[in-house]
Amino acid sequence: MEHLQHLPGIGPKSAQRLALHILKRPEEEVKALAMALVEAKLQVGYCSVCGHLSAEPVCDICRAPNRDSKTICIVADSRDVIALEKTREYRGKYHVLGGLISPIDGIGPEQLSIQQLVRRVSQQKVEEAILAISPSVEGETTTLYVGHLLKPFTRVTRIAFGLPMGGDLEYADEVTLARALEGRRDLE
Amino acid sequence: MEHLQHLPGIGPKSAQRLALHILKRPEEEVKALAMALVEAKLQVGYCSVCGHLSAEPVCDICRAPNRDSKTICIVADSRDVIALEKTREYRGKYHVLGGLISPIDGIGPEQLSIQQLVRRVSQQKVEEAILAISPSVEGETTTLYVGHLLKPFTRVTRIAFGLPMGGDLEYADEVTLARALEGRRDLE
Repeated sequence: MEHLQHLPGIGPKSAQRLALHILKRPEEEVKALAMALVEAKLQVGYCSVCGHLSAEPVCDICRAPNRDSKTICIVADSRDVIALEKTREYRGKYHVLGGLISPIDGIGPEQLSIQQLVRRVSQQKVEEAILAISPSVEGETTTLYVGHLLKPFTRVTRIAFGLPMGGDLEYADEVTLARALEGRRDLE
Repeated sequence: MEHLQHLPGIGPKSAQRLALHILKRPEEEVKALAMALVEAKLQVGYCSVCGHLSAEPVCDICRAPNRDSKTICIVADSRDVIALEKTREYRGKYHVLGGLISPIDGIGPEQLSIQQLVRRVSQQKVEEAILAISPSVEGETTTLYVGHLLKPFTRVTRIAFGLPMGGDLEYADEVTLARALEGRRDLE
């Protein structure tokens, strides 16, 4: 229970429920779970190119020959790569920063893989760097910081902010509506 | 109870609760409520210029001398005007269509104030018509239809679709993420 409580989203009650569940399961099942945890930890590391989770030294996306290596989408976390891959719209490569700049939490640019990104963009023929970072205070700081560093080398864009799909104008918050108005585009 | 049930969001149970509440209140209070309903209905009509709710023949926004009459924001409903006004970002005028084109519900372009809008845009010096319509099937149909009619007379734009403010990339649905990527803009 003590160990389970350290997992995200697991409080004392959930930890107890999980522990009691495990005690009831057959021995092989518990061993398989324990093995899976250790194996995943031992085998999965980070891609040496983009920083995404990978069981190989270079990840599947970085090795894919049919993906456009002239476009790099910059995200905070591997979870964002997974979310963007689900859209099946993006055919370029990624760069995972490993977090966001957050002075309050003591995270500065040097703790993130920003240097590697700048090296990657400056040394390869990158035509567009897309900043796909959530619009929080830390996200804005990181977007502006990274954008400033990349601009000498490539075109820098950022994803659109506005009304989510299925979102009703009436129920959108004021800041979202203001951004949707500000970001308006010519109707094609 | 029978009458109250016709109100939106009021089912048989809520109607009963409201009716019983009214029976318990003092006579003056009930009369004041009844009067307010009738007075609102008699006094509030539609602005003859933009179609927004108004107690005067021409609404406050249309009469305001300090608002930019070269920009018209086109919305489905008066509720959308109220939502956009809350952002305090928009300083132009509005046009309320009074609904969305919806063949299933038997609502065609002629039931909406589209003709008035085209007349307004073609006869006045309108520099930009902003379509601020929710991204539903009916919303898209209406946006394309109205946009097509207005293009000969003015620049036609539409509000941005993408990640809502405070929205996390990870929790955004796939269509929203795809639109956010597609609608990306150069970082300033």
